Amino acid sequence: MNMAEYELHCFAQSGNAYRVALMLNLVGADWRPLFVDFFVKGIPRTTEYRSAINEMGEVPVLVHGARKLSQSGVILTYLAERTGKFVPRGDEQRLEALRWIIFDNQKVNGFLGPYRFLRNFAKPRGHPAVMEFLKGRIDNALGIVDKRLSAGDYILGSEPTIADLSLVAYMYYPAEEFGFDIAANHKHIAAWLDRVRSLLGWAHPYDLMPGYPLPQ
Amino acid sequence: MNMAEYELHCFAQSGNAYRVALMLNLVGADWRPLFVDFFVKGIPRTTEYRSAINEMGEVPVLVHGARKLSQSGVILTYLAERTGKFVPRGDEQRLEALRWIIFDNQKVNGFLGPYRFLRNFAKPRGHPAVMEFLKGRIDNALGIVDKRLSAGDYILGSEPTIADLSLVAYMYYPAEEFGFDIAANHKHIAAWLDRVRSLLGWAHPYDLMPGYPLPQ
Repeated sequence: MNMAEYELHCFAQSGNAYRVALMLNLVGADWRPLFVDFFVKGIPRTTEYRSAINEMGEVPVLVHGARKLSQSGVILTYLAERTGKFVPRGDEQRLEALRWIIFDNQKVNGFLGPYRFLRNFAKPRGHPAVMEFLKGRIDNALGIVDKRLSAGDYILGSEPTIADLSLVAYMYYPAEEFGFDIAANHKHIAAWLDRVRSLLGWAHPYDLMPGYPLPQ
Repeated sequence: MNMAEYELHCFAQSGNAYRVALMLNLVGADWRPLFVDFFVKGIPRTTEYRSAINEMGEVPVLVHGARKLSQSGVILTYLAERTGKFVPRGDEQRLEALRWIIFDNQKVNGFLGPYRFLRNFAKPRGHPAVMEFLKGRIDNALGIVDKRLSAGDYILGSEPTIADLSLVAYMYYPAEEFGFDIAANHKHIAAWLDRVRSLLGWAHPYDLMPGYPLPQ
């Protein structure tokens, strides 16, 4: 049996996991996905998963030799440092990338993810007041990202970095899953999504990770 | 006029800003707070603030010489590297601290902050369905932190690091402001909050930053 260098605990619908799967693909890593059944079996929430894989009860988890890393922002940082690709140049850029990664996890995809989950997958679906709350926060955060991207091709300027790979997390999923169209309402984000999509090795989350479509 | 080495844009009710104010005080830095009027004037949301201070429309912002840093996780990282204090030791610990800082920003204080805001300060107050949504996420995240702290005095083990200073963000504010008692329901968190409180230089957020109490 062939072992891949990197193994990624993930599933197709997770934009958090997609950040890492995309980076692995873009850097041409030798990797394979390990399917985590979130929707039918609820694996990440089980005691076994929490004790053996990730105490935070989440994907993604990257296995690399003896290392087991979780939180996409950590994994992107690790891969950038190891591969020298998508790495922010210099101390100032390193901190600036981290700034956008934290902002993303808290306010951009940190709200886009739950919004899409509550609209598409959760049973029961999200309460309208919750959806309105999340949407307000999303609109504010997307506005900040769009404004940022009006000043340069990528978040840190002319070159793509891990800050971009973090921020695209949920943005390639179909607009129908959100009920609103991110690209149509934010022209700088739209152009940037096209730019990232044109990078060699880009693939859609539903093609890159197992578990799509969901069993009926 | 005396200039302090560090200046921190902040206000007393912001747990996000408290992380940084607390670290500055714990390391004995020469610092002073710059009051940002969030509640009466809504300063962080203004175009002026966004263009001159922080495009993300948030506090904290640390000014250090020509540098202007935002996102508490970035500032804690910067201060740890500069001062050598509360710094995670070695590569593995550095990534592990970052893991908890991102988790904190997304799911622990990332939800505690809005919950307390919607319960105490927002007009109108938060919708009950929103409060229930946030509380469910908070309970899950606090459970994960409590379990982690059952294994060691601090998040990374025997010594306090920036992961701890991040995670305490909103946890010293009065229980009445949340309507539930974090410490009473999580004994390992309670003991850890006592440990951090006993560090030389610790001060309560309402004593450390300007703007408390709010004008009536």
